[in-house]
Amino acid sequence: MEELLRYGERFFDELEIAVYRNREIGVNIELNELSMSAVRERTITIIRGIKNRSLGLAIIDSEDGKRIKEGIERAYRMAKLNSQDKRWKSLPSPGEYRKPRKINEELKDVSPDYFVELAKRGIKLALEKDKNIVVAGGGGGVEWSEERITNSQGVDVIQEGGGAYIYFELIGMKEGKVTPGIFDFDAKLSLDLNVEMAVENAARKVKWAYTVEKSKTEETKVIVEPWALSMLFQYTIFPAFSGERLIKGTTPLASKVGESVASELLTIYDDPLHEMSLNPRIADGEGVPTRKNVLIEKGKFKGFLWDNYWAKIKGTESTGSGIRNPSTGGISIGMHNAVIEKGKKSLEDMIGEIEHGYLVDGFQGAHSSNPDNGNFAVVANPAFIIEDGEIKGSTVFMMSGNVYDLLNQVYEISKEQKAIPFMGTVISPSIAFENVRIAGK
Amino acid sequence: MEELLRYGERFFDELEIAVYRNREIGVNIELNELSMSAVRERTITIIRGIKNRSLGLAIIDSEDGKRIKEGIERAYRMAKLNSQDKRWKSLPSPGEYRKPRKINEELKDVSPDYFVELAKRGIKLALEKDKNIVVAGGGGGVEWSEERITNSQGVDVIQEGGGAYIYFELIGMKEGKVTPGIFDFDAKLSLDLNVEMAVENAARKVKWAYTVEKSKTEETKVIVEPWALSMLFQYTIFPAFSGERLIKGTTPLASKVGESVASELLTIYDDPLHEMSLNPRIADGEGVPTRKNVLIEKGKFKGFLWDNYWAKIKGTESTGSGIRNPSTGGISIGMHNAVIEKGKKSLEDMIGEIEHGYLVDGFQGAHSSNPDNGNFAVVANPAFIIEDGEIKGSTVFMMSGNVYDLLNQVYEISKEQKAIPFMGTVISPSIAFENVRIAGK
Repeated sequence: MEELLRYGERFFDELEIAVYRNREIGVNIELNELSMSAVRERTITIIRGIKNRSLGLAIIDSEDGKRIKEGIERAYRMAKLNSQDKRWKSLPSPGEYRKPRKINEELKDVSPDYFVELAKRGIKLALEKDKNIVVAGGGGGVEWSEERITNSQGVDVIQEGGGAYIYFELIGMKEGKVTPGIFDFDAKLSLDLNVEMAVENAARKVKWAYTVEKSKTEETKVIVEPWALSMLFQYTIFPAFSGERLIKGTTPLASKVGESVASELLTIYDDPLHEMSLNPRIADGEGVPTRKNVLIEKGKFKGFLWDNYWAKIKGTESTGSGIRNPSTGGISIGMHNAVIEKGKKSLEDMIGEIEHGYLVDGFQGAHSSNPDNGNFAVVANPAFIIEDGEIKGSTVFMMSGNVYDLLNQVYEISKEQKAIPFMGTVISPSIAFENVRIAGK
Repeated sequence: MEELLRYGERFFDELEIAVYRNREIGVNIELNELSMSAVRERTITIIRGIKNRSLGLAIIDSEDGKRIKEGIERAYRMAKLNSQDKRWKSLPSPGEYRKPRKINEELKDVSPDYFVELAKRGIKLALEKDKNIVVAGGGGGVEWSEERITNSQGVDVIQEGGGAYIYFELIGMKEGKVTPGIFDFDAKLSLDLNVEMAVENAARKVKWAYTVEKSKTEETKVIVEPWALSMLFQYTIFPAFSGERLIKGTTPLASKVGESVASELLTIYDDPLHEMSLNPRIADGEGVPTRKNVLIEKGKFKGFLWDNYWAKIKGTESTGSGIRNPSTGGISIGMHNAVIEKGKKSLEDMIGEIEHGYLVDGFQGAHSSNPDNGNFAVVANPAFIIEDGEIKGSTVFMMSGNVYDLLNQVYEISKEQKAIPFMGTVISPSIAFENVRIAGK
């Protein structure tokens, strides 16, 4: 790698070479049967060079030295055509990394047959549990990666890791009624996946979903479960933590550092080495050491996230929050492993204490939210009706408003957390909000 | 390949081995600059085997004989766990292929540098045309593939092909106003891409978009341009042509063969070797010879599309409409190159003859349409206001209803067609509809 960096310095003032080796194994389920088993291996190298503050970036699907050299030359020809980025300062310098999480070696060479068995077991369980259930879809597998990031400033870091997952989508069909698809899953850094729990959770919700009622337009209590909550937060408040947005004036948190922006029950941080993380990282996408970054502590906003580029423009330091997009090669600001701090009560007790309210399993339309101001409009589906502390059936409703209002309506947080593998990992509990306006649909 | 098929027959009653070699080169544009240049090569082999009517399917990213043999064994272990598909008949038998389209050899080994130059030229042109324009995004490249499909019934077909594309997304910023992103593109089976036309079309629409007006709720004339039209049709009427849906009872065309379902101005067919096709095919995803299939002729519905599996269940023959999904390995019914027949008038004249109406460039939300009945609800954005035969500004409106009603409201079709590379190719003109109910937003 040293030799390739030296070769690149003939062309560029600064140069970064990042090599990503991936191995994915996966199986798919369709309509109660196994439909596919795949093994995929892939290596890509991303070359980012800067000459006179002009950027060149090349991607090749190889780590062969000759092809990397061609990539360097190609990136150079691009840089010559690009204009100067007057704000460019420099690539990151070396930093000190924490001790990586211990790697579970079995993830490296597990066969898809393992997941074929696991999926088959899940299908069997689901069909035994309720003869009206169809396992409409599902899948399981492992994603394993080794990466090495080097640059001409002296950064050279290697890290490996990966996780396993299994999920099921169940549909109930009874007396001419068809429930919506109900998902549940497990995801871990080991092969010890809880198929029983995933199937049981989904099957229980299918039972609830056979009874469908129209929802009213009202102000009520709503518990949002981990998957739905992380969808909503990923498209509303998480982007608002970005230092790039602070500089561009597109975050409502701009003047809020140190101020209360949420209920004091709420604490959110990025903790790349958290024990539940599905992808623990000691270095970010450009080799900067990661750290725990607290975003909201007991309702108070603590500060922004930075990558190397925007931090240097702002005159601050990177928080190790550069996330590499493997298809474009670009770096953007994000979280490695967002954690929403857990509370003290069980979800069961939270439901048990509600006289009238709703439990939301999924949100549709969260991606159309506006992180510039926090406005959202989503459809809660599937959602379940709570009456006198028990689930009485399923429904669908609209929920719209501003996420910062919602953050102040938190009144309880569950002690159970779940690792959600969606746009990075989110470790999320269920959160109960009060006085939520919902519109029947 | 012969030897591998024989090896597979030790395990399976029937076996299919399909090898796909892909080469993609591409460049990306971000904010007036080139942001990435990539070369990606990839080979995948899909093994589909049937034992006692149980399916096994394995995917590997290699065409190495040893790994294919492992894949065969893996597929076999899966088949043993799956239940019998009592409807399974057999894999396709050999058929007679038409002469393939002549291949443009330059597409096979063009360098990304060619597209770097092309993209740079487009950016320069756009910025010269209007100093308020930003080239927000864009890209260009080539997708090249060679595939070989063989099965134990004697099918053995090789085909190659690929196409080139370039696109630009322009945004205008003037006096505090920001237009929506306006796309235009060119896509062809040669490197002869028309950058000037793409930039000019998009820049003209940006000019129109500086003036924004609220739209009314009214019944009016609406011209839908190719990209928007193909989005709407892909999610409403195209799925209704599927023989699988006929058998499952989820197409509103079930009892309509030979009947009028649209204006007699409308003719739609699948023509895999059409001169404008971006991916001409002599064989479908399971090696069945392709042919021209007429779906709607002068408003009359002519019949359904079939792949091997559903055709044999129905007791008819495959229309060569099996489309392979490379990520799941599965086959579903679809079109290779949908053609909406062109009309006689130029788009310019069509606009010129409208006293009051709209021109729609894009639809949002088309993917939520319901092909079971043809209902849709979309947002037309960007849309342009036509007054006295001229574009007077831009607007946004809602359009909802049933696509089969809309098909009867066609009153003119443009003589220009465009090749749209979206879920297969769609060759589409602009279509003018009358008495369309729209809702101001």
